[in-house]
Amino acid sequence: MMKYDLGVGEFENWVVAETRFSTKYLGKAESIMMLGNGYLGLRSATDEPYLGETRDLLVAGTFNKFNDDEVTEIPNAADVTRLDIQIDGERFSLEFGETAEYFRSLNLKSAELTRSFVWTSPRGKVLRFIFRRFVSMVDLHLIACKVEVTALNDAVELIVDSGIDIRMTNSGSQHFSDGVRRIHDRSFIQQVQTTNESKIDFVVSTHNLILIDGRPPEAPGVMEMDRRKVWMHYLLTIEKGETLRLEKLSSVWTTRDRTESGVEPTLDQIKTDALEHLRLSVGKGYDGLQAESAAAWGSKVWGVYDIDVEAERPFDLLAIRFAIYHIVCMTPSHDDRMGIAAKGLSGEGYKGHSFWDTELFILPFYSYSHPEVARSLLTYRFRGLAGAHKKAAENSYRGAMYPWEMAWPTDGEVTPVWGAVDVVTGKQTKIWSGFIEQHITADIAYAVSLFHQITGDEQFMLDCGYEMIIDTAIFWLSRFEHNAELDRYEITNVVGPDEYKEHADNNAFTNYMAKFNIELALAYADRLQQQNLERYDELSSKLGIPAFREEAAAKLTRIYIPLPNEEGLIPQDDKYLTYPSIDLAPYKNREKVGMLFYEFSLDQVNRIQVSKQADVVILLYLLGYLFPPDVIRRNFDYYEARTLHDSSLSLSTHAVMANDLGYSDMAYELFHQAARIDLGENMKSSDAGIHAASIGGIWQIVVLGFGGVRVIDGELTVHPRLPKGWKRLSFTIRWKGAPIVFDVTQDRVRVSPPEGTSISFLLERVRKQIDTVSVFALASQGGRVV
Amino acid sequence: MMKYDLGVGEFENWVVAETRFSTKYLGKAESIMMLGNGYLGLRSATDEPYLGETRDLLVAGTFNKFNDDEVTEIPNAADVTRLDIQIDGERFSLEFGETAEYFRSLNLKSAELTRSFVWTSPRGKVLRFIFRRFVSMVDLHLIACKVEVTALNDAVELIVDSGIDIRMTNSGSQHFSDGVRRIHDRSFIQQVQTTNESKIDFVVSTHNLILIDGRPPEAPGVMEMDRRKVWMHYLLTIEKGETLRLEKLSSVWTTRDRTESGVEPTLDQIKTDALEHLRLSVGKGYDGLQAESAAAWGSKVWGVYDIDVEAERPFDLLAIRFAIYHIVCMTPSHDDRMGIAAKGLSGEGYKGHSFWDTELFILPFYSYSHPEVARSLLTYRFRGLAGAHKKAAENSYRGAMYPWEMAWPTDGEVTPVWGAVDVVTGKQTKIWSGFIEQHITADIAYAVSLFHQITGDEQFMLDCGYEMIIDTAIFWLSRFEHNAELDRYEITNVVGPDEYKEHADNNAFTNYMAKFNIELALAYADRLQQQNLERYDELSSKLGIPAFREEAAAKLTRIYIPLPNEEGLIPQDDKYLTYPSIDLAPYKNREKVGMLFYEFSLDQVNRIQVSKQADVVILLYLLGYLFPPDVIRRNFDYYEARTLHDSSLSLSTHAVMANDLGYSDMAYELFHQAARIDLGENMKSSDAGIHAASIGGIWQIVVLGFGGVRVIDGELTVHPRLPKGWKRLSFTIRWKGAPIVFDVTQDRVRVSPPEGTSISFLLERVRKQIDTVSVFALASQGGRVV
Repeated sequence: MMKYDLGVGEFENWVVAETRFSTKYLGKAESIMMLGNGYLGLRSATDEPYLGETRDLLVAGTFNKFNDDEVTEIPNAADVTRLDIQIDGERFSLEFGETAEYFRSLNLKSAELTRSFVWTSPRGKVLRFIFRRFVSMVDLHLIACKVEVTALNDAVELIVDSGIDIRMTNSGSQHFSDGVRRIHDRSFIQQVQTTNESKIDFVVSTHNLILIDGRPPEAPGVMEMDRRKVWMHYLLTIEKGETLRLEKLSSVWTTRDRTESGVEPTLDQIKTDALEHLRLSVGKGYDGLQAESAAAWGSKVWGVYDIDVEAERPFDLLAIRFAIYHIVCMTPSHDDRMGIAAKGLSGEGYKGHSFWDTELFILPFYSYSHPEVARSLLTYRFRGLAGAHKKAAENSYRGAMYPWEMAWPTDGEVTPVWGAVDVVTGKQTKIWSGFIEQHITADIAYAVSLFHQITGDEQFMLDCGYEMIIDTAIFWLSRFEHNAELDRYEITNVVGPDEYKEHADNNAFTNYMAKFNIELALAYADRLQQQNLERYDELSSKLGIPAFREEAAAKLTRIYIPLPNEEGLIPQDDKYLTYPSIDLAPYKNREKVGMLFYEFSLDQVNRIQVSKQADVVILLYLLGYLFPPDVIRRNFDYYEARTLHDSSLSLSTHAVMANDLGYSDMAYELFHQAARIDLGENMKSSDAGIHAASIGGIWQIVVLGFGGVRVIDGELTVHPRLPKGWKRLSFTIRWKGAPIVFDVTQDRVRVSPPEGTSISFLLERVRKQIDTVSVFALASQGGRVV
Repeated sequence: MMKYDLGVGEFENWVVAETRFSTKYLGKAESIMMLGNGYLGLRSATDEPYLGETRDLLVAGTFNKFNDDEVTEIPNAADVTRLDIQIDGERFSLEFGETAEYFRSLNLKSAELTRSFVWTSPRGKVLRFIFRRFVSMVDLHLIACKVEVTALNDAVELIVDSGIDIRMTNSGSQHFSDGVRRIHDRSFIQQVQTTNESKIDFVVSTHNLILIDGRPPEAPGVMEMDRRKVWMHYLLTIEKGETLRLEKLSSVWTTRDRTESGVEPTLDQIKTDALEHLRLSVGKGYDGLQAESAAAWGSKVWGVYDIDVEAERPFDLLAIRFAIYHIVCMTPSHDDRMGIAAKGLSGEGYKGHSFWDTELFILPFYSYSHPEVARSLLTYRFRGLAGAHKKAAENSYRGAMYPWEMAWPTDGEVTPVWGAVDVVTGKQTKIWSGFIEQHITADIAYAVSLFHQITGDEQFMLDCGYEMIIDTAIFWLSRFEHNAELDRYEITNVVGPDEYKEHADNNAFTNYMAKFNIELALAYADRLQQQNLERYDELSSKLGIPAFREEAAAKLTRIYIPLPNEEGLIPQDDKYLTYPSIDLAPYKNREKVGMLFYEFSLDQVNRIQVSKQADVVILLYLLGYLFPPDVIRRNFDYYEARTLHDSSLSLSTHAVMANDLGYSDMAYELFHQAARIDLGENMKSSDAGIHAASIGGIWQIVVLGFGGVRVIDGELTVHPRLPKGWKRLSFTIRWKGAPIVFDVTQDRVRVSPPEGTSISFLLERVRKQIDTVSVFALASQGGRVV
């Protein structure tokens, strides 16, 4: 079904393609071939409509709450992509007639979506169709479509309806009022829609240009309208051999946009700006606009995120480029009030909310490759301190307790409360993550520290970083509960990364990370005091650093972290190892995740040794330096066998760890499994959008896993180990601002620092200090930590 | 496309049928084959989905306002009719494969919808499908579906998804929150949805029973859910020759329901009641429930609304039954807080609002045939006095100014403010009806008086009628403006029935009806004072009758009503006759109404002698006794030539008047045109719902036109004149409570009063007094008024 590359000429490994059309794959193609630029995301629904499609136009940061029973979410704005086409009076659809030479492809390099085929209508008319579409990387508001239809064997009568549709909902929840609409010069249509709670105005504009063999059609279009819809209706005849060309240029602007002065614009302002910009775009035409946009992708993306692989399977490089393409599409790097959503801007899943996915699975990519964007994303979290304080206060804690799901920075917790109906009780179950999945707060502190170590960005630390790390540590001090009996500090009743264990006591990941967060804050407080007393004093009085230090000193040694038991196993929580194990074979690697719940209630799953995703394993990955190698291996072996990978966050961590441990085949297999979460054959898995964390994970497996890049104790360490089928991997990372190119083969690594720089790093545990291109032989034994 | 009758056996003239399936007619069939019982209306969307369908479940009176920019409307509740069927893994749709023996029919007698065909899948599997569906006339909450699938040539694997979907919107506006859902006994699913502004809870319940050749399937269904959706998923195998039967029983209850004690129930109460009732229904099964419902249609509808025609064209009788069927479906006769909507309960058009359509086009049917229902409908208007006072006050008038569009009685005016974009200016135009289409107030007073004259219902008059007539007259006194120059009272700046003339001064219809309303009130005030001094005193102090009388006496003689000019023409308004006439041929009898607006702006149309609908003609119809016969003929001839009938309200009035005037062929042709508004070939005209007024008009053309029944000066008058192709027309009307049967042929009428009654009436202007079955010869010359 899905073809991964063309394997021809310049497009090799750049194209995600589909060679046969089936409505079963609508959702998959809409998501994985989505178009975006971080400002907006557009699902790649086909121009002509099909049952079961999901047309989404999502504009970053435009959160709205449908009503008080729902949480805020990213609203599905106007559709401008649908074209209703009739051929000789009958609806055009690939479900009818005969389709030949079908090819739909997303060119990752130019970020253009193309679809072409020869279609024979049920009545025997033969037509060639070419559809093109892109979202501009230059004018972030612009969506451009171009359709060419050639009548191959006979004249045809075409009816085309093309306009703006604001009937779109988020699975039935309508976020917008139906605002005013206006037509300018009988050709530019503008429709206003306003979110009902957050009162964000959207101005959606569109313009259609139709030419037949270069000439305007005899009859001009007629404007039609209905409730929440306005469109142009064209009745056209094309003679045999003639080609109809439709160029539809559309744009979306909102009052959440930030003008150059940093303030939000007025509705009148964006109406005027949108019209003016669209007029200019119409002047340039589709081809000119696409060339501009493709050039920007070249310079802003492919020239920056430089990575290459020579592999037996061309798929591997495509998967990496696919990951980078989607990371760019999903990242609102233009606005530090916005974060990355769990499905990016590719679908309604998880409502556009940010989870720990960003900090642990995507941020490393930016910290290593584009620190300015990483800083913007962390600034979003800094702005989120307001919401984190709100959440802490609501839960009677102190400091900054980050929401499990975050939307607009000041919103606080936005995790929905109710989930599926329990198969046993018949009642809806509560989603506990928003209440008790608390490790996110430490994950963010961890990410700030990692960002700082990689980039050396002291200004960010002064502006935001110190405060975030200390404020989160204060939360943890208030969160730890004193167990009087054992005279120790514990954390009970949480959900760890493994969400199949609700209400766990002393979840290892949570306790270790919380303790780490406190230690980090103590260290950073000392550092700030030494380096910038003015800022220290400011923060000290704001956060109460002396009191924090005192409390930390009193509690730290008595914080309970589950140590490895006599078998070397770190208990995931107080009870996990006491539960029975069951045969997980029937539930592993299934087409659909969560198959367990067709047979077990959540209560029952809570009491089996089964994990949804990496829990202890991700602890080993993040804080591996705390444990001896045999403990890491023993725990990996034990928990990997009990992990269903029912979360898309799980595979990449296991892949990196497997590679570390010298399980090369397993690592490569897990890399493929991770890549196939979106790029694979499973037709339903991406319906609600791509898996942002998994996509970040693909890059992590390659650079942090196979490339072996890690920061340990503030030091860059590299321990490359390529999969068998890979001849060469080259990538660039920025260390303290300097781009260093690593070129790795099976047996050597070439390291190229920028001219005039001297860098120090550990290569396979051996310190290297270089100031010019240097080549090192690689050892061939086992894994890194062995 | 549409076939009107089976012409076989007992079903003759009872069946509206379709013999070929085409998605172009989806909307038409959904509307004209809708199922309903006045409590709820269900569009007859097919079980399997198609692009372009509109699935509506509308529950009378459950108005909600989406937001402050929209007006209140009847919300589209949960869908329980959709079945997603897969045959051997592929979506079942009549757009694929081969369909034979296709027949879809609505049996008006039993009110059951049936659809059957033999379908050959693209892979060659042959299956017989029979779908049945009805909305119960016994349990007003119940919707029942039954599907039978027989594998004719091979075993097939079926997947069926059947549940409750609350993603439904009103063309994109979502009125409901997503409430709790629960499953009882793993088979009864309940979903709550609550309107967001009016806070009406809906409880939607469903139960699926599946049997294969009478046995339960091996694998039970699995419950699945998604946002705003919950459903059972069945994976079934039927062997060659076996039949799968699915019975799906569903119900909808709301907290707007009225319990026997007259109060609205609580959510918990309806949850329990709904579950209990559904359990009982499941016990009875589809066939038993359908038999019960059909029997109720027999006794409550066909036994009451007794009308028969022997005509050359069987279509004529079908059209009459079709009208009665739909009038019953659209009338919330169970609850006098609710009125009839312009599209009944058959679609979202006009938002479920009540217009003058009810009083002038539907109420006569009930006043003559089922006075209790007429009384309920007028009580709705009586309750609407609250809203009418609100509107009067908002516009600085006194008394009761009825809203042009009415929803919940206390809402006041609910006409939307903005309409289409003007083709010339590019801006949205204002809908003026809500502001200045004011004749509705007099129309309601007229209807009260007519109801009283027909039924003699003094109790209603005491409870409601006197007050309504006087209160509306008080409005008119405050509405008339004094023209100092001419020393007369005028009404300027209105829209009359002809909405193609906005901002008209002295619209003849409005002025005459307003004056009539005042005169009516004076007469009724006198009558009440004579007959019931207590109630008179009560109303007198409430409304200020002496002051009203005084003001009326002062103004009445100086109220300006446009008299016929020297050519005998009544000017439709001050300017109409001064405008140029244009050739209307290109715009008459077009597939789509409003074709004029593709070429003219509303402003331009306002200044041409063209009428959307009857204006002076309906004045002649309602108050014909005021004018000499030649004036009636002259005005009819003049205005009929200038009327586009772009409103569905227009044709029936012209038909009745044409019949009066002896234009028999024209009358019969207009009857057919009126019937074809919904029952005709035009595939798009009924998309937004059936045309309630036109359907009432069908009955009016037959009984008031061909049957010649009218009330003049309080007296029943009859002047039958059958179309050439009609041998016989018989009908029953209730006069002062007594059912009188008229049996009319081309040359005689037989009148049968109930035993022991003596009635007096005018037959062809000659007074008759009878107390037993009597036969009278009919004159054969010209029209009634000649």
